[in-house]
Amino acid sequence: MSATPAYDDLCQRHQRIYHLQHLEAMLAWDRATTMPPGGVAARAAAEAELQGLIQGHRSDPRLMSALKAAEQEPLDDLAQADVREMWRDWHDASSVPPVLAEARVLATARCEFAWREQRARNDWAGFLGPFREVLRLAREEAARLGEARGLDPYDALVDRFEPGMDAATLTGLFDSICGWLPSMLAAARVRQGTQRPPALPGGFPIAAQRALSEALMDVFGFDRQRGRLDSSAHPFTGGVAEDVRITTRYNPHDPFDSLNSTIHELGHARYAQGLPRAWLGRPVGRARSFGIHESQSLSFEMQIARSAAFASRLAPLLAQHLGPRPEFESEAVLRRLTWAEPGLIRVAADELSYPLHIVLRFRLERALISGTLEADDLPAAWDEGMAELLDLDTRGNYRDGCLQDIHWSKGAFGYFPSYTLGAVYAAQWFAALRRDLGPIEDRIASGDLVPIFDWLESRVWSQASRWETPELLQRGTGRRLDAEAFRRHLGERYLGGADDDVRSGDGVGHRP
Amino acid sequence: MSATPAYDDLCQRHQRIYHLQHLEAMLAWDRATTMPPGGVAARAAAEAELQGLIQGHRSDPRLMSALKAAEQEPLDDLAQADVREMWRDWHDASSVPPVLAEARVLATARCEFAWREQRARNDWAGFLGPFREVLRLAREEAARLGEARGLDPYDALVDRFEPGMDAATLTGLFDSICGWLPSMLAAARVRQGTQRPPALPGGFPIAAQRALSEALMDVFGFDRQRGRLDSSAHPFTGGVAEDVRITTRYNPHDPFDSLNSTIHELGHARYAQGLPRAWLGRPVGRARSFGIHESQSLSFEMQIARSAAFASRLAPLLAQHLGPRPEFESEAVLRRLTWAEPGLIRVAADELSYPLHIVLRFRLERALISGTLEADDLPAAWDEGMAELLDLDTRGNYRDGCLQDIHWSKGAFGYFPSYTLGAVYAAQWFAALRRDLGPIEDRIASGDLVPIFDWLESRVWSQASRWETPELLQRGTGRRLDAEAFRRHLGERYLGGADDDVRSGDGVGHRP
Repeated sequence: MSATPAYDDLCQRHQRIYHLQHLEAMLAWDRATTMPPGGVAARAAAEAELQGLIQGHRSDPRLMSALKAAEQEPLDDLAQADVREMWRDWHDASSVPPVLAEARVLATARCEFAWREQRARNDWAGFLGPFREVLRLAREEAARLGEARGLDPYDALVDRFEPGMDAATLTGLFDSICGWLPSMLAAARVRQGTQRPPALPGGFPIAAQRALSEALMDVFGFDRQRGRLDSSAHPFTGGVAEDVRITTRYNPHDPFDSLNSTIHELGHARYAQGLPRAWLGRPVGRARSFGIHESQSLSFEMQIARSAAFASRLAPLLAQHLGPRPEFESEAVLRRLTWAEPGLIRVAADELSYPLHIVLRFRLERALISGTLEADDLPAAWDEGMAELLDLDTRGNYRDGCLQDIHWSKGAFGYFPSYTLGAVYAAQWFAALRRDLGPIEDRIASGDLVPIFDWLESRVWSQASRWETPELLQRGTGRRLDAEAFRRHLGERYLGGADDDVRSGDGVGHRP
Repeated sequence: MSATPAYDDLCQRHQRIYHLQHLEAMLAWDRATTMPPGGVAARAAAEAELQGLIQGHRSDPRLMSALKAAEQEPLDDLAQADVREMWRDWHDASSVPPVLAEARVLATARCEFAWREQRARNDWAGFLGPFREVLRLAREEAARLGEARGLDPYDALVDRFEPGMDAATLTGLFDSICGWLPSMLAAARVRQGTQRPPALPGGFPIAAQRALSEALMDVFGFDRQRGRLDSSAHPFTGGVAEDVRITTRYNPHDPFDSLNSTIHELGHARYAQGLPRAWLGRPVGRARSFGIHESQSLSFEMQIARSAAFASRLAPLLAQHLGPRPEFESEAVLRRLTWAEPGLIRVAADELSYPLHIVLRFRLERALISGTLEADDLPAAWDEGMAELLDLDTRGNYRDGCLQDIHWSKGAFGYFPSYTLGAVYAAQWFAALRRDLGPIEDRIASGDLVPIFDWLESRVWSQASRWETPELLQRGTGRRLDAEAFRRHLGERYLGGADDDVRSGDGVGHRP
């Protein structure tokens, strides 16, 4: 007989949840890539049925008693970490009463629909009604979650995406970044000159772009036995660890769109494929967090693929698949990929501007949840923040202002910080990786990425959720979260060297 | 308050089953069309979880008490038909004990695997072991089902696919067909001469064949808002009525492969898309049976698409998509599509030979289930039947003999008769349709198929499972099941006229 019957029971229950989440992931993939429009209503009903089943299993009160019993059992380190993650999952699922969860589903469905309609019409007033309701419910949900976990309401929302993270830490990190990033961006723009990379003349057949994306899957070591590439309106990584479905989006006028998004999703995909197979089905076997996930996509997209070394690797691939052009020569490619120019749209932002878009959203959503900002006052606050952080005027332009992202209409407050956390983590991983492996530029240029993958696999992918995030980072890099590596990375790439002007101290929140 | 609380409760329960079956259908589609090989194990576990849930709902004992209560409620005709179908579903799900169902899943998985291995090696001995076990369990299952329904064991298996059908009726029908079909086949072969349609020289790009299949979807009125076409190793119609997924298979050397299978699946698809939307989610809203389903695919593939009129419609489409050739001229197309030549393989059989393959399988599987034939003696019985029915020698050729079909290895006994029932029903629908609409050849030639679709929709598609099959047929055609219309159809097509030689009497089992 097992010495850990309660833990064994928990594993069985989570195995069942894992199976149902497999179905959920595949159906979501199908919905985004394949499903014809007439299938929407029947699919929504079927998915709601499934979500109800999953929610029922995750919030089953018997889990709590089993968790308490398992804590008294002789568990090894891994099982203890598993129980820690099981507790997190149970709190997440059981803290929100079903009636609130249901109201949230309805309100966000209505608001997301309004978003699609009103964004196109630049109609803030039309969006405001549904959005007020989403915000009201998000505040209530945050309060419930916070109460259950002993956290500040906004922190409880952040914690869903980035376990253990809180607004105070994010404030320190983001204030630190805001201390040097705007001046670095200004300096980079002076340095790059005024000759913007030109629009690419002519068109690029989708089939050729697809072949290029397939070639990139090989460059980045994607396991085609356990996944595939398709296309969708918004690129994403879906499916399950055993069958990772990535998508990209083909723009007939700009092959760099699909190139960048394919590489980005490949980072997510390798993380998913690199999770330890023996742990799959247990919460400890899940990816650590949204920020850590993003750190892998940005390791590929930013750390590797926007380097001079990779541009020299990319140039012949572009010429091979799309035909030779001056714009596909190594230096032109690098200039295009590292061109810095603040704009209104987050998803189109360059590597330097991007964090400033995130800082704005972090400040606003925190204020929205805490109640110091009301839905009605969001546009004015947005205009003010854009002027301060990016020196851009968004007054009256809701479509490219506070209506540009889908996140809040879906009630996803607390998600935005993950993007910049990912960029910061990625810089930390690569600083440590260079320390361990030595210079990696020649390897990147020659296409020998395996040592980089092996490093990421051993430090990140294979660790799954075994450690809480700070320990994962400490074990992998020897450091705690700070923006220094990010600052050095950007300084070297955009100012041409880690000079004193871009050097900084240690620790979160340090301001030079 | 509702006057039919028990029936309302049943509808809710079946709505839930319907949602779960939506998930099941989509996952099966993905598995057959999309899933990479490495995803198999995780998918199998997830699908097994789902199947367990569905089975649990379908066999829930509370259904039985609700059904008994509903029968006392003031139900309208449609609800009464719904309850009749609910009873059928409940019996089907609850008559087989879970331990037997589980043993069956394991044995058929093993046998299907053996089939893939041993068929390729022509190794009957290697297949026999797993097949004995599948047969043993199928006999037990048939006995249980028969006991629960008060049916002979083999009839209980047939009833799963063709509700209300039994071996005696099938024997009558098939004996009748065997009375005239072999001589008709012989006469057709004399009439067609010895000049077999030649193999098509050169290749046919998949993209061009796909465009042809897409064009056929329009010809046959497929609603692209509620479905799509993809490719798979074995063509099938899957998905759900709201989102019908058909597949075809492209042979680079023969565009008639995909053409025929696309048209066949389009018949299944229009039936599914034509089910009354208001009834979806209730058992009465399901397609009537496998035989009726096949009658729709064969209405498209055989009744319409192998006619001289349709060949004249097809010829310009072939030339447009694949380039003009002598083989794509109207008469050559018709000759190719109606070439009759007995062969070993059922799925490659022409319209005249096909029923003889089915008769063989019906006789053998009935004997296997009743115990008058043992697994060990199947090859000898197969050889004997092939010699008798098709005058072909299969001795020692298991691969193209009794190992050619996957069905029995999966335990699907009772399924084969549906194919020829479908052909017989299709001929009856079209005899009635011609009686109602007058000659349809000009309409088919001009591409005006809408009156045909409207007729099928009103008589078959929109009726779903409202009537038991004999009543459905009687209401739609004014006749009961008999092979006369089939005989006339084949006689006109293959002997060039409904002369006395091919005229027959009325009723099942009539032998001229």
